[in-house]
Amino acid sequence: MNLTAQLHSLGQAARKASSTLATSSTEQKNRALLAMADQMLADEKKILEANEQDTEAAATAGLSPSMIDRLRLTPERITGMAEGIRTAAKLPDPVGKVLKEWRRPDGLLFQKITVPIGVIGIIYESRPNVTADAAILCLKAGNVCILRGGSEAFHSNKAIATSLQKGLESAGLPAASIQLVPVTDREAVQILCEMDEYLHCIIPRGGKGLIETVTRHARMPVIKHNDGICSAYVDEETDLAMAEKILLNAKCQRPSACNAIETVLLHRSIAPSFLKEPAQALLQAGVTLRCDEDTLTLLPPKVRSRFTAQIEPAREKDFFTEFLALILAVKIVDSLEEAIEHIESHGSHHSDLIITENKEHAEQFLKDVDSATVYWNASTRFTDGGEFGFGAEIGISTEKLHARGPMGLEELTSYKYLIRGTGQVRP
Amino acid sequence: MNLTAQLHSLGQAARKASSTLATSSTEQKNRALLAMADQMLADEKKILEANEQDTEAAATAGLSPSMIDRLRLTPERITGMAEGIRTAAKLPDPVGKVLKEWRRPDGLLFQKITVPIGVIGIIYESRPNVTADAAILCLKAGNVCILRGGSEAFHSNKAIATSLQKGLESAGLPAASIQLVPVTDREAVQILCEMDEYLHCIIPRGGKGLIETVTRHARMPVIKHNDGICSAYVDEETDLAMAEKILLNAKCQRPSACNAIETVLLHRSIAPSFLKEPAQALLQAGVTLRCDEDTLTLLPPKVRSRFTAQIEPAREKDFFTEFLALILAVKIVDSLEEAIEHIESHGSHHSDLIITENKEHAEQFLKDVDSATVYWNASTRFTDGGEFGFGAEIGISTEKLHARGPMGLEELTSYKYLIRGTGQVRP
Repeated sequence: MNLTAQLHSLGQAARKASSTLATSSTEQKNRALLAMADQMLADEKKILEANEQDTEAAATAGLSPSMIDRLRLTPERITGMAEGIRTAAKLPDPVGKVLKEWRRPDGLLFQKITVPIGVIGIIYESRPNVTADAAILCLKAGNVCILRGGSEAFHSNKAIATSLQKGLESAGLPAASIQLVPVTDREAVQILCEMDEYLHCIIPRGGKGLIETVTRHARMPVIKHNDGICSAYVDEETDLAMAEKILLNAKCQRPSACNAIETVLLHRSIAPSFLKEPAQALLQAGVTLRCDEDTLTLLPPKVRSRFTAQIEPAREKDFFTEFLALILAVKIVDSLEEAIEHIESHGSHHSDLIITENKEHAEQFLKDVDSATVYWNASTRFTDGGEFGFGAEIGISTEKLHARGPMGLEELTSYKYLIRGTGQVRP
Repeated sequence: MNLTAQLHSLGQAARKASSTLATSSTEQKNRALLAMADQMLADEKKILEANEQDTEAAATAGLSPSMIDRLRLTPERITGMAEGIRTAAKLPDPVGKVLKEWRRPDGLLFQKITVPIGVIGIIYESRPNVTADAAILCLKAGNVCILRGGSEAFHSNKAIATSLQKGLESAGLPAASIQLVPVTDREAVQILCEMDEYLHCIIPRGGKGLIETVTRHARMPVIKHNDGICSAYVDEETDLAMAEKILLNAKCQRPSACNAIETVLLHRSIAPSFLKEPAQALLQAGVTLRCDEDTLTLLPPKVRSRFTAQIEPAREKDFFTEFLALILAVKIVDSLEEAIEHIESHGSHHSDLIITENKEHAEQFLKDVDSATVYWNASTRFTDGGEFGFGAEIGISTEKLHARGPMGLEELTSYKYLIRGTGQVRP
């Protein structure tokens, strides 16, 4: 069987499983999740052996130690996955919720209720635990998933998926509800992208190359995460101690995260005091500041000389860059409007922040900045399904359709309309 | 300027207008809509002259009279468009609605509010009044639209768009909020599909060829309408008079509509009485019945001989066909489950119907049929934004993401999260 035929038969099986799964009860799904957690713990040894194959191959191939570490599973990581599955079992079922209900003058009763999306393709490059995380969230929302992981984690992913499928089957749900693409061929991604007769949507989780391939080829809806170029604006009336605390968190807690800030915009009137205190705290935390000309002029000479190596002139492109490192572009603006305009034209509409004591300014910022999450006096690091209280996260969407921002179980559902009548016909 | 550069500059202008429009007040938008209605009436003569050019060219090119009629504008049709604009002004603003609000244990206040999508591309083939209909719904929801109409309506579309833009400007909103692609080149569609840096989504309204082109090339989300293969299942316990009334409406009121039924599934126990009465009513209304073998066997000889020309044996492909005509495929099934299975595997998940007096059967059908709209004892012809009470309709989506079924103003919005804090940072 050639690759296309192989993937199509996988798609057919997925659609078939999808009908069963979509009409399964909450109790059935939760029982299956608990069985999957048990099975995964029972299969710990097999999973670790498979993982050993992957990490050895990675070492032979000369992958970096940090890459190998991302790849590595340990008994603790497997326990963590199993616990994640049990947590999902406890979350409320997102399916079958009545979103709206109304009656028309002719007596027709309309209900809008949540249903599973159907079959979701997830293409990822990173750690093998994504295999379990993505599969269980899809399952909880009644969706079949077709998983395509990175080739370097192939054996680990296969062992995890096999374990999950065994758990599913033991609880009476179709094993085909979780499918792993059984080949490492690169063309598989493109073939999946064209299978819109089977896949209702596709979620790429990975680098720019993967996102671009999926964007170019996908015939079905794509939920993707592009850049996280996030900015903070320090307004004229600001509690500088609060600004320092928020910015240290937003920049330094995890610089490689998409919700870390990359740019700070300073109102001209607050800039001198900001550059004396909070700026030093950032520098002390190891942040390099890429400063526009005004900022360089206003930086106190003492700060400049103390942190010479961490102060650089900003080029225009720095304000369009997601550094993913301890680097922060700094720019002085003359007004709230200029700050908003900068964010709208340079940012990636992900997470942006105003720090101000002026409620009116805050509300204008919240209204005018068109980003998935807009903050007033709180760290952008809260852009995360867990921090939002969603209980789980399948990713963060930078799309404007269907799901925007952190995606939890709700975002893994669609809806349908039920219309109950007594013989009504259209006039 | 080449076509690509021309369309990109149009995209840039659209994005710019989008910022202004997104932050315009309800009152500003409604004032603009009323000005647009007035302007359109004032421009009646110009619009009719432009339309005359199109219809003459169409006649010369040998287009069918029905095509030319679809193309033709009259003073009544222009008044109709103006009235449509005034109706839109009266509808509630879908933007700025708080969808959800919650507070986290650390005091952070979360709000999920509706916002415009941004820039929407609409590609259509049909009547020139779509230009006004689509533009005003986009505007009401704060969206900029880029319209690409059929080349045969080019002058009409241009005159209508110009009139709408004048109205916008007179009310102080940017004329670029409504943009018409100023060329008829076929490549324009493909170029638009690749402009994901400007367009947030694209809505193709037209035939299979157009949908396929957009599906293949679009890099941004597509909201599309595929087939409407809708079915009705007549259950064992059925009020046959009601079944007759509903089916006559669902099949015959407008056979070319996507929400008309194409297949009737009859429970074996009700088939003999159905084929005596309601089937005759359908035949009398001019419907051709494509019957499976069981149906042919059970058809009373009197009916067969009276309507010989309208009774044909069904081929398998008839059950996968959207006839868009007075043709109905008829099949006998042994159970509710078989009916559901048939609909799931043959239908297009658009609008499906059960006619039954058995509440339990009805609820199982409503639960198990995965279609945008599922009916119990009411005509599928209600699948329509107006009939749903949406006040307006931009189309019917057969997608499962973002919008499913009839799309009103709400479906032309996205959302964002506003998070208000007092200095919170992520632990």
